[in-house]
Amino acid sequence: MPKIYIVGASLTKIDRHFDKSIKDLVSEVYDSLISNLKEDSIDAVVVSSALSGVIYNQLNLASIITDYLQLKDLSVYNVELGEASGASAIHIAFSLVRSGIHKSVLVIGVDKLSEYPTWKANRLYSMVLDSEIDYHYGISPVNYAALLTKLYMKRYGYSRNDLTYWPVLMHQNATKVPHAQLRFPISPQKALSGLTMSEPLTIYDTWPIGDGAAALLIANEDIARKYSDELVELAGIGSSGSDLGIPSRDDPLYFPNTYRAFRRALSMANIDGKGLRTYEIHDNYTISAILTLEALGLTERGGGCRFVKELSSGNVGLGINLSGGLKARGHPLGATGVYQVAEIYMQLIGKFPISVDAEVGLAHNMTGLDFTTFITILRR
Amino acid sequence: MPKIYIVGASLTKIDRHFDKSIKDLVSEVYDSLISNLKEDSIDAVVVSSALSGVIYNQLNLASIITDYLQLKDLSVYNVELGEASGASAIHIAFSLVRSGIHKSVLVIGVDKLSEYPTWKANRLYSMVLDSEIDYHYGISPVNYAALLTKLYMKRYGYSRNDLTYWPVLMHQNATKVPHAQLRFPISPQKALSGLTMSEPLTIYDTWPIGDGAAALLIANEDIARKYSDELVELAGIGSSGSDLGIPSRDDPLYFPNTYRAFRRALSMANIDGKGLRTYEIHDNYTISAILTLEALGLTERGGGCRFVKELSSGNVGLGINLSGGLKARGHPLGATGVYQVAEIYMQLIGKFPISVDAEVGLAHNMTGLDFTTFITILRR
Repeated sequence: MPKIYIVGASLTKIDRHFDKSIKDLVSEVYDSLISNLKEDSIDAVVVSSALSGVIYNQLNLASIITDYLQLKDLSVYNVELGEASGASAIHIAFSLVRSGIHKSVLVIGVDKLSEYPTWKANRLYSMVLDSEIDYHYGISPVNYAALLTKLYMKRYGYSRNDLTYWPVLMHQNATKVPHAQLRFPISPQKALSGLTMSEPLTIYDTWPIGDGAAALLIANEDIARKYSDELVELAGIGSSGSDLGIPSRDDPLYFPNTYRAFRRALSMANIDGKGLRTYEIHDNYTISAILTLEALGLTERGGGCRFVKELSSGNVGLGINLSGGLKARGHPLGATGVYQVAEIYMQLIGKFPISVDAEVGLAHNMTGLDFTTFITILRR
Repeated sequence: MPKIYIVGASLTKIDRHFDKSIKDLVSEVYDSLISNLKEDSIDAVVVSSALSGVIYNQLNLASIITDYLQLKDLSVYNVELGEASGASAIHIAFSLVRSGIHKSVLVIGVDKLSEYPTWKANRLYSMVLDSEIDYHYGISPVNYAALLTKLYMKRYGYSRNDLTYWPVLMHQNATKVPHAQLRFPISPQKALSGLTMSEPLTIYDTWPIGDGAAALLIANEDIARKYSDELVELAGIGSSGSDLGIPSRDDPLYFPNTYRAFRRALSMANIDGKGLRTYEIHDNYTISAILTLEALGLTERGGGCRFVKELSSGNVGLGINLSGGLKARGHPLGATGVYQVAEIYMQLIGKFPISVDAEVGLAHNMTGLDFTTFITILRR
């Protein structure tokens, strides 16, 4: 199979961009990407957005954006898969290049949640659950995350304090990242005393509402160097989905789709995972980060919370959410998966605010609590 | 490149299914598809729906459907591209198989517009246009279609009566098709006297509101025969997008994306188009059918309306919308592109209600008035 490369990436600062529309955010990220490439030809565009229809009254978003960017005569695709929209767009772009259908594919992820009250954003976010069940009863993913958190603490004997290491570390990381939304440190006490979202979770156990756009250009090996000398191979992808019902899972404290997607991506990249030195994981909740670290085999079952504490002490030697993660870098839903891969790309080419000694990195993007999960492995 | 096959297809009758949910429609079409195959293993699912978020309050639809069908441990993708969602899902599935990422991919298209008043359906449909411009001002695609119709009549000297051949023919075709929504013939007088949608268009120049689901299974050549002996090759795909602004187009009476997508699909299929004997085209309006026939080179510019009259007389020797088209078979938005390809598949294997002497057929699916267009060529 031919090799596929990321030849460039760009992203906007995540913020409450009250003065910018979706089109403004997309133009900004597109112009920035293209201005850093030697060549601007593009065969296809894949756009990712979770909220296009339900917030912006916009179906067919990819056509609208392509037109706005004055791109003509190319193929256009549009994906929506809740929070996993971004990675699914990248996997589809990878497929379109690997199959020979297109030589170069632009991936754009964008979402804009500001200008809406928090209750509205939460209501929309709950649409990633089953609309006939959870949404109907007003249940949001945060409620499931709270249940899993309680169960986790009880089964493995952790205290509420033990859960503060993750948000504290994420906020610490974000202080060094210019594009992160929440660039201030927090204390464990602050993490505990935030507004309760769903007992025992506070707002520091989840992501802030914000807007952002990110873009990547993916090209095949024949033409990759025409665009750039900063190439990173899209070495492996893997995904797994379904098995949504938290109560009906064999073990609610286990992320089976993350595990399977990870094995598949390792297999395609033909590595065993030991060389992975940097990860961007989908920490929509503190408990999600913990269960993801366990499913990725970075620690044993039940050891995730301890692992995070060690990570905080700086003794682990791995980069995990150097961006600050969804928690502090921010989470513009359909753009997040594109941000993650763009960040790993920047880390591997040495253009990330924090220097990273890594040749191989991984992005983990999922919708809900491991409902459908995508793993993307990049290799310098 | 390895050959890719459609190994099976199924579809529901399009109707106002007040008694069935999205899940019911999808189950019906999935069960019917699987029960006709020798093997039921599936590596991935691509779901297509235009209205999932805006009507059903459902993001992440593909995950929800996959879970409902009790499919586990497979890859899940979801697309939305307005009316072209169905074909874009098929093209993505084709790519996922051709790239070797998956061996077999299930494509499901579904939409359900009943239970909503017509004004609401029209309002939602207008979201395929630019939400900041057209949608904001209450402009729906039908208004642009009306403008193009007037311009076409004036430039090429056609009368309003000349435009009735298309809806009359479509209703005639649909009388023989059990899954069509409008299975009754209409007279030219009836076509003229329908409720005015946007002068000079009546409701007979556009599609009825209805619900439907369609499914296809796509597999690579190594395993295709494990599923079925009724194989049809997905021989070529092509697409082109953007250039939305009708007023700013070089010539509003020309469908450039249809032309380009058609050339690309022919090139991939390695044919010149003369062997194409059956077509399913995207006649969201009578004028769309006419301009599509011209862009596909079946007649000269300005000759589309005359061509439709000849077609009605039965002297053309081609199958064009034997299903009855969007006009009479129906148009459950995100499912339509899947219906079209399923119909061409059924025609080529001899399982369509009307017998067709064809080895190669084409489906043409677009969003709006040639905003983004997908051509799919099938070969027996």
